[in-house]
Amino acid sequence: MNSASGVEVLAFDIFGTVVDWHGSIVREMARAHPQVDGDAFATAWRAGYRPAMARVMSGELGWTLIDDLHRMILDGILPQFGLEHLDEGARRELNRVWHRLDPWPDAVEGLQRLKRRYILCTLSNGNIGLLTRMAKRAGLPWDCILSAEVFRAYKPDPATYLGVARVFDLPPRQVMLVAAHHDDLEGARGCGLRTAYIERPLEFGAARPKDVSPRAQNDLHARDLLALADQLGC
Amino acid sequence: MNSASGVEVLAFDIFGTVVDWHGSIVREMARAHPQVDGDAFATAWRAGYRPAMARVMSGELGWTLIDDLHRMILDGILPQFGLEHLDEGARRELNRVWHRLDPWPDAVEGLQRLKRRYILCTLSNGNIGLLTRMAKRAGLPWDCILSAEVFRAYKPDPATYLGVARVFDLPPRQVMLVAAHHDDLEGARGCGLRTAYIERPLEFGAARPKDVSPRAQNDLHARDLLALADQLGC
Repeated sequence: MNSASGVEVLAFDIFGTVVDWHGSIVREMARAHPQVDGDAFATAWRAGYRPAMARVMSGELGWTLIDDLHRMILDGILPQFGLEHLDEGARRELNRVWHRLDPWPDAVEGLQRLKRRYILCTLSNGNIGLLTRMAKRAGLPWDCILSAEVFRAYKPDPATYLGVARVFDLPPRQVMLVAAHHDDLEGARGCGLRTAYIERPLEFGAARPKDVSPRAQNDLHARDLLALADQLGC
Repeated sequence: MNSASGVEVLAFDIFGTVVDWHGSIVREMARAHPQVDGDAFATAWRAGYRPAMARVMSGELGWTLIDDLHRMILDGILPQFGLEHLDEGARRELNRVWHRLDPWPDAVEGLQRLKRRYILCTLSNGNIGLLTRMAKRAGLPWDCILSAEVFRAYKPDPATYLGVARVFDLPPRQVMLVAAHHDDLEGARGCGLRTAYIERPLEFGAARPKDVSPRAQNDLHARDLLALADQLGC
């Protein structure tokens, strides 16, 4: 029995795993605000993400969509980058960059191949509208958009991983989480899902290469989504 | 300004509007249980649908997926058709016919054309797993699967129609409901959505043709999804 036998659904983390958030934001800033250090800006924006979700999960904030958390963080960092003059329209447009993230070069073809054999869904903390618009622009061929918004909990809350299994009326071991982050995979494994790690050494930019060495706990380890398709015989 | 100007999202009713539930169940019965009157069987199964949802919405039953409501209704009608001997596996397989409904002949091409210009989502009382498996089998090219399951309310509860607008961060008039049922369209209209009626005169089978005459309240009236694409210039 191979490490993915019986799997019917592949659930994908999105930011960093399927799309290149850091590079996309650097390119957006180079285009729209070339005087700003795009690398530092992208890093600062993303750094606010986990603390903001923690405020929701602790109950300090009510349930909040990621679009709104991104906007709160953006408003907070603009002064550090000399952009406090941006008006409402410009802030709204910039915040929508998360809907326009570019996929990694292997992602569209890899997903198209995997889709022939598996049900492909997102499992992201990003909200449904964000994920849908991103997929439409980038050509990501999801069978279904699942999100923290559906389960009213952010990953790594077990409600998200078990929620995917429940939606498809499957035992957890017939669902595999595909992600570039070990903590996400660990959360899934704790709920009985299978796991596939994807190497994304440049997730944080070329200046901050990420350790992508394999960990034995994952069922699969793949360089990218084409390599995952190879391993799964798609 | 035409009747669909500014619309960004088309939300589709599914059973009867996009897929032919009656014909599909008749064909399934002819194949699997040819001694049964498939037309009467399909009609009886579907007739239990609204009363079952009403039991959930009244609070008599807790929140229940349509897969489970379909199964409760099925168990109830099997004796009337001499099928009370079906075992658990056979009942489960028969209940899954709702995941295997065939699209109307115009649906796939019509949706492909509409998808070039609009975000296409489902808005069905069917559960996410059912809608996803149906779409994958039939080739329905949704950008996003939305369901009563996401909003924890069945149509025509306003939470469902307004939920679509909220998911996409749009005012209701930028969302259009596409459906073959006037009560569904009326619910959407009451929430400020635009509406398109699709004629499906054979929804209940050739023996029970449906009145599909236009009603002035709807923004659009189309013979099928190809005609809707024509009207929307797709």
